[in-house]
Amino acid sequence: MSKRTNSAKRQLILDEAAKLFKLKGFGGTSMRDLAAQVGMEAASMYNHIKSKDEILELICFHISDTYIRQLTEVEHMQAPYVEKIRALIGRHIQLMIEDGAAVSVGNNDWKYLTGDRLEDFKAARKRYEKGFAALIEQGIAAGELHPVNVSVALFTILSAVRWVELWYRPGRNVTPEELEENIMTVLLNGLAK
Amino acid sequence: MSKRTNSAKRQLILDEAAKLFKLKGFGGTSMRDLAAQVGMEAASMYNHIKSKDEILELICFHISDTYIRQLTEVEHMQAPYVEKIRALIGRHIQLMIEDGAAVSVGNNDWKYLTGDRLEDFKAARKRYEKGFAALIEQGIAAGELHPVNVSVALFTILSAVRWVELWYRPGRNVTPEELEENIMTVLLNGLAK
Repeated sequence: MSKRTNSAKRQLILDEAAKLFKLKGFGGTSMRDLAAQVGMEAASMYNHIKSKDEILELICFHISDTYIRQLTEVEHMQAPYVEKIRALIGRHIQLMIEDGAAVSVGNNDWKYLTGDRLEDFKAARKRYEKGFAALIEQGIAAGELHPVNVSVALFTILSAVRWVELWYRPGRNVTPEELEENIMTVLLNGLAK
Repeated sequence: MSKRTNSAKRQLILDEAAKLFKLKGFGGTSMRDLAAQVGMEAASMYNHIKSKDEILELICFHISDTYIRQLTEVEHMQAPYVEKIRALIGRHIQLMIEDGAAVSVGNNDWKYLTGDRLEDFKAARKRYEKGFAALIEQGIAAGELHPVNVSVALFTILSAVRWVELWYRPGRNVTPEELEENIMTVLLNGLAK
């Protein structure tokens, strides 16, 4: 097999694993279930992936690396804080739309990580929350945002977008663009006129 | 025992059960755990409560009945839609602050209800969502709210407040009033000035 085929198969395994973990939980999914879902013999699946733990790590760090990359991009933007926050929320929503199952694993199954990897994941989450909070804090200091409690605003925003991963699928009569724009209207401009 | 003592004991059992279900899940909690937590012999606990299933029902319907009562109160208010929505979000947050463990059971463990009670609970939830959505829809029609997609606004708001039940406890350096006011600022006025 070419490297390319190998990498595509590995990605297929990760994608199907994320869907199964989302549906049945990390604990409720066996490597046998996964092999059946992927349509591969369990033995040949192990040519691509070492263990269920390795799969969990790869999915969780794909998500946390993406969040951190998005935060870093936004931190380097030359723009008002309100635009930075808009950009960060937008990327956050897009990741949920494009990679909902993996985001779900990152939200719910990360606690099954072990040792250093568990600590690394928690540190990445803290880094994201602190970076996001700093943007809100600076936006308030610059007079661009209402003077709210930063933690309350941060968790309200992060919580407000979490349903997207549970609800959104094609056929909901809302395009991804409308979804993003409507959420942004509520969070940044407020529902009230 | 007086009726009053009986009713207080029953309430104590429900309160401790909600905390245990929140911590360990409905499936992960045994009647033996609960008796130990309440500080009662299991046998005498059964004088107050029939079964774990009955406890789950009582907690779930306490929450859904409260939500429906709050919705009905707000529907009968003579006020602009934006004030009705403010009042409904406020009551929703207050219930989470005052009765967080029970709200958590209503959010997560309701799926272990069975038969008619499961259907009744789902119907109550639908009634709440539809009533809340109608307020948003009417508020938009009256020109009081931004013309957003009603489902997106509804789920953004309901999701936005869900972290309160997970995060809030005394000692967070935010009073219940500040918490409510800050969430309301983000959702109704928007974070941006």
